[in-house]
Amino acid sequence: MALAYDGAIQDLIDGFAKLPGIGPKGAQRIAFYMLGTDMQEAQDLADAIVTVKMKVRFCEICGNVCESSPCPICEDPRRDRSVICVVEEPKDVMSIERTREFKGLYHVLGGAINPMANIAPADLRIAQLLNRLKSEEVKEVILALDPNIEGEATTTYLSRLLGPLELKVTRLASGLPVGSDLEYADEITLGRALSGRRSV
Amino acid sequence: MALAYDGAIQDLIDGFAKLPGIGPKGAQRIAFYMLGTDMQEAQDLADAIVTVKMKVRFCEICGNVCESSPCPICEDPRRDRSVICVVEEPKDVMSIERTREFKGLYHVLGGAINPMANIAPADLRIAQLLNRLKSEEVKEVILALDPNIEGEATTTYLSRLLGPLELKVTRLASGLPVGSDLEYADEITLGRALSGRRSV
Repeated sequence: MALAYDGAIQDLIDGFAKLPGIGPKGAQRIAFYMLGTDMQEAQDLADAIVTVKMKVRFCEICGNVCESSPCPICEDPRRDRSVICVVEEPKDVMSIERTREFKGLYHVLGGAINPMANIAPADLRIAQLLNRLKSEEVKEVILALDPNIEGEATTTYLSRLLGPLELKVTRLASGLPVGSDLEYADEITLGRALSGRRSV
Repeated sequence: MALAYDGAIQDLIDGFAKLPGIGPKGAQRIAFYMLGTDMQEAQDLADAIVTVKMKVRFCEICGNVCESSPCPICEDPRRDRSVICVVEEPKDVMSIERTREFKGLYHVLGGAINPMANIAPADLRIAQLLNRLKSEEVKEVILALDPNIEGEATTTYLSRLLGPLELKVTRLASGLPVGSDLEYADEITLGRALSGRRSV
């Protein structure tokens, strides 16, 4: 007999199983959860999916996701326009906003240099960054890329590219995460924390 | 500034975060994945969610999910109508079907007795089971509930209820899972495997 579910349920399981972080068992669990919810909740989720595709675009200046371009951050007159923080993805903008430590502008690259995944510098929004640096009054560029191999490669590439320009290029500090144990830190992180030590 | 995303993205993140097994970070990851997919894939998922709510119902006989009632298993003339396998949820039907060992009919209870979650015997499809046993030519009822406290309680309840009837009531064997190590079996499982030992 049937070893897969009837049409509509299997379609939904397959649909959820395509999403990142959801396996076949998780997709099945979600599909049965959807069966049990009321029609309104299901309709809301379906609408949210379509709405996001219709409404959300990328800011023409910084590349962040937004519903109006330029985005609210680029338009905000209270932001410090002399500092641009370069990040890989729109979600990194939100992470930095949550610290409430940064009042400048952003530039979203759309990824990091990764030869294994065929992502070359030309695939990133680097030309747009250079254009902004030419036309805007920027004094500092903060390279806030992920502290992994791809992020490091992109940081090195950008720091060489921006080196000749008349501006300060900085990067995020490496070191021990707050709340962690010295004992459990890996050698590279501990080495970075040592070499980047500060006077108290 | 904004510590949440712009309207539509946040709505989608909130929508996914409501689903079982998806936390806020996972929901964010899925929402950004949806932004990156083409419109067709997003539309397909939205349609699948609504279609499942419109089309899928519960079989009036066995309580399994299906698009037509009675369901294809209840309607199938090749199935052995003298055996009914009682399970908690529709997904358990699929698990047993995958073994290809069972050719009888099913009865889905819709859960197990669980006083902590306010699920009493009256909330399960037990009356419907008794009706089927009266009207159909059933010789054996297999109790295939989950081997946990709620499943055991329901098995005990049903075996007492069905005891006086003229039929064989059986339950799934407890014992060591195939492919496991004796060393890692818990005491209860190993005890059940011993008491249920079979001659070779």
